[in-house]
Amino acid sequence: MTVIAPERLSLRADFPGVLDWHYLDSAATAQKPQAVIDAIARAYGPDYATVHRGVYARSANMTLAYESARRKVADFIGAKSDSEIVYVRGATEGINLVAQCWAGEQLKAGDRILLSTLEHHSNIVPWQMVAEKVGAHIDVIPLTDDGRIDLDAMRAMITPRHRMVALAHVSNVLGSVLDCRRAADIAHMVGARILIDGCQAVPRLAVDVQALDCDFYVFSAHKLYGPTGIGVLWARGELLDAMPPYQGGGSMIDKVTFEKTTYAPAPTRFEAGTPHISGVIGLSAAIDYVQVIGLDAIHAHECALVAKARAALENINSVRLFGPDDSAGILSFEVQGVHPHDVGTILDEAGVAIRAGHHCAQPLMRHLGVEATARASFGIYSDQGDVDALVRGLERVRKIFG
Amino acid sequence: MTVIAPERLSLRADFPGVLDWHYLDSAATAQKPQAVIDAIARAYGPDYATVHRGVYARSANMTLAYESARRKVADFIGAKSDSEIVYVRGATEGINLVAQCWAGEQLKAGDRILLSTLEHHSNIVPWQMVAEKVGAHIDVIPLTDDGRIDLDAMRAMITPRHRMVALAHVSNVLGSVLDCRRAADIAHMVGARILIDGCQAVPRLAVDVQALDCDFYVFSAHKLYGPTGIGVLWARGELLDAMPPYQGGGSMIDKVTFEKTTYAPAPTRFEAGTPHISGVIGLSAAIDYVQVIGLDAIHAHECALVAKARAALENINSVRLFGPDDSAGILSFEVQGVHPHDVGTILDEAGVAIRAGHHCAQPLMRHLGVEATARASFGIYSDQGDVDALVRGLERVRKIFG
Repeated sequence: MTVIAPERLSLRADFPGVLDWHYLDSAATAQKPQAVIDAIARAYGPDYATVHRGVYARSANMTLAYESARRKVADFIGAKSDSEIVYVRGATEGINLVAQCWAGEQLKAGDRILLSTLEHHSNIVPWQMVAEKVGAHIDVIPLTDDGRIDLDAMRAMITPRHRMVALAHVSNVLGSVLDCRRAADIAHMVGARILIDGCQAVPRLAVDVQALDCDFYVFSAHKLYGPTGIGVLWARGELLDAMPPYQGGGSMIDKVTFEKTTYAPAPTRFEAGTPHISGVIGLSAAIDYVQVIGLDAIHAHECALVAKARAALENINSVRLFGPDDSAGILSFEVQGVHPHDVGTILDEAGVAIRAGHHCAQPLMRHLGVEATARASFGIYSDQGDVDALVRGLERVRKIFG
Repeated sequence: MTVIAPERLSLRADFPGVLDWHYLDSAATAQKPQAVIDAIARAYGPDYATVHRGVYARSANMTLAYESARRKVADFIGAKSDSEIVYVRGATEGINLVAQCWAGEQLKAGDRILLSTLEHHSNIVPWQMVAEKVGAHIDVIPLTDDGRIDLDAMRAMITPRHRMVALAHVSNVLGSVLDCRRAADIAHMVGARILIDGCQAVPRLAVDVQALDCDFYVFSAHKLYGPTGIGVLWARGELLDAMPPYQGGGSMIDKVTFEKTTYAPAPTRFEAGTPHISGVIGLSAAIDYVQVIGLDAIHAHECALVAKARAALENINSVRLFGPDDSAGILSFEVQGVHPHDVGTILDEAGVAIRAGHHCAQPLMRHLGVEATARASFGIYSDQGDVDALVRGLERVRKIFG
C-alpha cells in the first residue's frame, strides 16, 4: 500500500477547510472540496428552483439534476435501480426508517434482532425503540480480541427467531472492517434481513451492495465530503415496495381525500415534503469528486496513513492503541493517565484536531474498559504532515503530564 | 399599504436567482439572498466542523453559531425559550413529529382531530396516519365563501372529543390569513391543542407564537429565503418535555446500554444524528436578512402587489380569481377554457414562472371545483415589473387560446 503520489496531494488545496490545519476528525464529518461548495452555491443561486412541480424550465432542469443524482448514487453503490435509492436526512434517519417501516411491520413479539458490541448509538437506539414497541429482543455479537465483529460467534448464536441483523461496515471507533458478505450469508441462512451502516465505509472503500448481498445499506453525505442534512437509504426494491410510508406530506401521495389517501410508489412514498434540493446537488458533486480519485486509491492512502500512525504511536510508551492493525482510516488510542479530553485540548493548541469522547458508542467503551478514547481519523486530504503533527503533539502531552 | 420604496427595491440585486426573471413561485420556495449563500459557503469552507462533540476550537465555534441560531429563531417567533425550538427537516417533518410523538401518545380510540378544507397535504396525511393508528376520527372545518377557514363553523362543530386542531396560518393556495388567536381560543375552550402550519406565514407576516397562543408552530427555512432541508418545530416547553423521542441515534441520548437507554432533555431528544449544520447557519443568515427589511414592510409590500395583480387580472374577461381580496402574497386563478399547465407553459416562454397544479391541496381543489389552479406568489424581491409581465403573459394566453 502506498500513500497517494505527491502530485496527487495537491488536492489538499481543494479544501478551504483544511488549509494550515491538521484535521484528524474526518470520521465525525469530512471537509468539503471547493467543487462541492461551488455546486451548492450555484444550486442556491442562478439554478435555484423547486423540483417535481414547476411548469417552468428552471424547475424542470433542477428536477433533472435532482433525479440524475439519484441515478449517480445508485451507480456509485452498485444498486440495481435508482428506484431503490431513498434520500433521507442521514444514516440515522435511514436506520430509523427501516426500523419503523420494515421491522415495525414485520417483527412480532418474541422475534429477535442481532446487533454487535461496536455499534454506533444510531444503530442501537432505533432497534431498541422498535423492539420495545413490538416485544422483540436484542442480542449482541461480541468482538474478537483485535476489535472486529466476531462472525464465528454470530454464526453460533443466530437462530430462526432472528429476523433482523444490523451491523457497521466500518467501526467509527476502531476502524475495523466487517466482512459484509459473510455476515449477509449467515443472516440469510436463517432467513433474517441484514442492514449495513455504511457511514464510515462509503468514504473509505469501494461499496457494491449487490456484491455485499445485504438487504439495506445507509450512509450520510457529510462524511463523504458532501453537504449536511442529506443521506441515502438503499434497500432491495421488493422490500421498499412492501413498506408503508414513513412521514406523510406533499409529494409522497397518489391521491388525497379526507376519507382515504393513497400513496405513491417507492422511493417517492418515503420522501414527504420539499426535499433537501441543494443537499442532493452537493452529494452528486461529492460523488463526482471522489470518483475522479477513486475509492481504491483513497482506501490505500488512508490505510497507509493509519499504518504509519500506528507505527509511530506504538513507539510512545504511554500510548495504548485500540482496534486491528488494518483499520480503515480510523485510529483510537489512549494516553495512559491522561483524560482523552485533555489530550484533545493540548493537540488543539498545536493545530491538530482529533475527537475525544465516547464517539456515540458507549457499549463499546464499556467493552474496552474506558470512559472515552482519543480518535484520529483520516480523509482524502490527510498526509504525512498530519501524522507527524499528531506525534509531536502527543510527545508534548507526555511532557506536560510527565 | 405601499409597495417598498424604490430605493429599497435595489434588494432585487441581492438575489442571484431572480436576475432577468419574473419569479412568481415564492410560495413553492423562495430565492436566496447572496448573504445566505455566502454564509452557507463559509460554513462549508473555512468555518466547517461538526457541532457538540469536538474538543477543538473550530468545533466549539461552530457549536456556538449553531446554538446562537436557535436563540435567534426563538426570538424571531416570540418563543419563551430556545429549548422550545426543535430543528427539523422542514414543516412536513415538524407536523409528523407532533402527530407521532404527541397525538400518537395522547389520542385514544374515539378521539377527534379537527383540520380544514384548505390544508396542505402535509397537514392532512400525518393526521390520517396517526388517526388510523389510534382509532381517532378527522373532522373538517369548511371555508367561508371568500376562502377563509370558517371559525364560526369551527366554534359550532368543536367538541370535548376534539383533542387536536391543525390549521394553516396562511393558505398556500388562496393566501387567506387565519385569525390564529381566535382559532386557538376556540380550541382551548374544549381543552384541545392547536398546531399552526406557518410555512406561508413566517416569510410574510410578523409571527409571535405567544401572542397567537398556539401550542405547536412549524415552518420551513427554504420558504423564508433560507436553505433546503431545515425547518423549525416550536412547541410549548411543557408539551415537548412530556413527548417521547422521535428518531433514535447519536446526540439524543443520555446513556446507552443494550439493556436500557435513557434520553436527553428537549430539544436535544428530538435531534438524532449529526444535524444539518450549514442549514442552521443559513437559516440564521436568512432571519438576519428579513429582519433588516422588517416583516411588516414585507407584508405590506406583498399585499400591495397582490392588490395590484388582482385589480389587473379582474380586468381580463376570462380570468377567475380565487381567495379573499386581502390575501397575503399568494394569488390563485384560472383562465377559463385553458388548463393551468398551458397557462404556466406560455408564461414560462415569456420569462414568468408561476405554479400550476393542485398545490398539494387536492381537497381544496375539489371544493373549488377545479383540477388545478394557476398560482402567482410574491416575495421580497417581487415588483411591479413582475405584475406587468404576468398581465402581458396572460393577454398572450388569451390570444393563443382565443
